[in-house]
Amino acid sequence: MTLAPQALRQLVGTIFEKHGMGAEHASVTADVLVWADLRGMGTHGVMRTTQYVNLMRKGDLNPRPQMKTSADGVIDADRAAGPIAMTYAASVACERAKGSGIGLALVKDTTHTAALGYYTQAAARQGFAALALAASSPLMAYHGTRAAGVSTAPLSIAVPGEEEPLALDMSSSMISMGALAQARRSGKTLPEGVVLASDGTPTTDPKLASVPLPLGGAKGSGLAFMFECLASFLTSNPILAEALEKTPASRRHKQNAVVIAIDVARFVPHEVFRREVARLAKNLRRLPGEDILMPGERGSRNAARQRDAVTISPQVYEELKAL
Amino acid sequence: MTLAPQALRQLVGTIFEKHGMGAEHASVTADVLVWADLRGMGTHGVMRTTQYVNLMRKGDLNPRPQMKTSADGVIDADRAAGPIAMTYAASVACERAKGSGIGLALVKDTTHTAALGYYTQAAARQGFAALALAASSPLMAYHGTRAAGVSTAPLSIAVPGEEEPLALDMSSSMISMGALAQARRSGKTLPEGVVLASDGTPTTDPKLASVPLPLGGAKGSGLAFMFECLASFLTSNPILAEALEKTPASRRHKQNAVVIAIDVARFVPHEVFRREVARLAKNLRRLPGEDILMPGERGSRNAARQRDAVTISPQVYEELKAL
Repeated sequence: MTLAPQALRQLVGTIFEKHGMGAEHASVTADVLVWADLRGMGTHGVMRTTQYVNLMRKGDLNPRPQMKTSADGVIDADRAAGPIAMTYAASVACERAKGSGIGLALVKDTTHTAALGYYTQAAARQGFAALALAASSPLMAYHGTRAAGVSTAPLSIAVPGEEEPLALDMSSSMISMGALAQARRSGKTLPEGVVLASDGTPTTDPKLASVPLPLGGAKGSGLAFMFECLASFLTSNPILAEALEKTPASRRHKQNAVVIAIDVARFVPHEVFRREVARLAKNLRRLPGEDILMPGERGSRNAARQRDAVTISPQVYEELKAL
Repeated sequence: MTLAPQALRQLVGTIFEKHGMGAEHASVTADVLVWADLRGMGTHGVMRTTQYVNLMRKGDLNPRPQMKTSADGVIDADRAAGPIAMTYAASVACERAKGSGIGLALVKDTTHTAALGYYTQAAARQGFAALALAASSPLMAYHGTRAAGVSTAPLSIAVPGEEEPLALDMSSSMISMGALAQARRSGKTLPEGVVLASDGTPTTDPKLASVPLPLGGAKGSGLAFMFECLASFLTSNPILAEALEKTPASRRHKQNAVVIAIDVARFVPHEVFRREVARLAKNLRRLPGEDILMPGERGSRNAARQRDAVTISPQVYEELKAL
C-alpha cells in the first residue's frame, strides 16, 4: 500500500511520542526511517518502528536521552535512538572537520543506527566527504568459524555530487539480515556460499538459513573486527566479547559508531570536486554494460519516484496502526 | 630459493641506488618490498623491483623527489616511490592526530604504493589506529559494466595488538591482480564469477582472464569509486577519468592515497585497548571452526617463520641479479 511520505512520518512520529520521546526526537527518528523506505531500503524503514517501541518498553532505548560530548568528540549517547545519536554525530564530525580538515565523532551506547547513508548524505549535502560505520552484536560468521562471531559491519561513504550526494551504503556480509528475512518469507532458495544454518552447516534452504557469511571471507570479517575495535574499544564499550561471553550487560541491546567527516572545501573548491565526480560517473556510464548505476543512484531514483507516495507492506501498516 | 632478509634488502637497495635513488630512499623502498615477501605477499614484494626500475627509466618514478606538504596535510609526492611517500604520509597523519585525535594525510602523485599494511602497521606500532587506501588506474570492472573502469581499491586498517598490530589488508576485487598472474602461470582453472576476459565475457580460463570483478558487485566497485573521490579528487589529481578518456597525462603511471590516523591514547589507555583486542581475539578463536586467524595473523606468522631466511622465486632472483 502507499501513503504520502509526510503522513507516514507523522504516524510514526506520533507513535514514538506516545511512547515517551520528545516531539523533536520523534520527528527526526521518523524521518530517518521513512527516508529508508523512500529509497527502497524497507529493511531499515518504518518496519523497524515495532522494534524501537519494544526497545523503549524494555528500557534499552532511552526516549529522553541526556547526550554528552567530550572535548575529543566522544558522544555518550545515553541509549538514544540511533537516528538521534547519529544525526548529532554527523554534525559533530562536520563541525570538528572545520578545524583541521578532518573531524571524528565516536558514538558510545546508542541503539540500532538505522540507515547509515542518511547521516553521510546529510554531511555530503553540507559539502563534506563522510564515512560512517557501526558496531553491533554477533550476527555474521567470523571467517574460518561456523558461528556468529561478528556484526554484519555496515559502512557508508558519501561525497557531494552534482545534484544528490553519491553514497555507498553496504554491509560486510554476503547477504544482509533483511534479505535473509525476505527469503524466509518468500521461501526462495538462497545461492550457495552465502549463509549457514544455526548448527553451522552451509545451507541454501531459507527456512534453515541463520548466519550470513562474510563478504570475501577474511575481508568481510576483518572489516567487522576492525569496526568493533574502532567504534567499541575507543569508546570503552565492547559489544562482541561481552555477547560471546554472555555477560549480564550483553542482554541489553546497544550499538556504537564512528563518523568521520572531511571538509572538501579545505582541499579543493566544491564546484571542482563535484565536476570531477560527474566526469567520473559519465566515463563509467559510457563503458559497455547494462544498468550502470553510480553509488546510491538507485536509492535516489526510488526516492524521486516515491516523492508523493511511498510504498510499505500492508502488514507493516497494520502494525503501525495497532501501535 | 631463500636468502637472509638483510641480504635481500641490501641487494634491492643497491639496485635502487644504482638507478638514482638516495641511500635512505633506496633503503626504505627495499625494506617495504622485502617486508611483503616476509609476510608471504610476494605479489607486493621484491618481484616489483623490475617494475620500479622501469618506472624510473621512463621518468614516471622520480628517484630524487622534492616532496612538499601543505598546512592541511596534502603531500605533493613529486612522483616519489610509493614506499617513500606512504611512510612519510603515515608519519604526517600520526603527527596531525596528536592535535585533535584524528589526522589526515593526502598523497598526491606517488607511484605504486606497495603493501598498504606496512604503513598502517607502522602507525599502529606507535599507538595509532590507522587506515590507508589508494587510488590507481582502471583494472577492475565497475559493477554492471564489462570493462575495466576502476582500480582494485586496496584498503588497510590496523590497530595496536598485544604484540604485533592486527591489520586488515585487502583489495576490493574478487581476485587480486597478483593471484590472477599466478593462475596464468600455473594454468589452474579459476572459480566462476571472479573475472572477465578482455572482451568482457565471463571466463574461468586463466589464459583468457583479464579483468577482475568487484567484490560483492556494487560494494567493491562502490568502494573503488569512493577511493578515487577521496584520494584523487581531494588532491586535484584524477586518475580514472583521465585513463578512461585516454588523455596524454594518463600515459604516465601514478597513484594517490589517503592515510588517516587516530590517536588511541586520547580515547582509552593503550593497555585497555590492547587488552580488549586480545579479549575479542580469544573469544573468536573459541568459536567452532578451523584455522581461525585474526586480521594479519597469517602474515605475522609468515614473517616470524622467515625471520632468518626469506623465500623468493628463482626467476625473481635472476631478475634482481641482472639489474
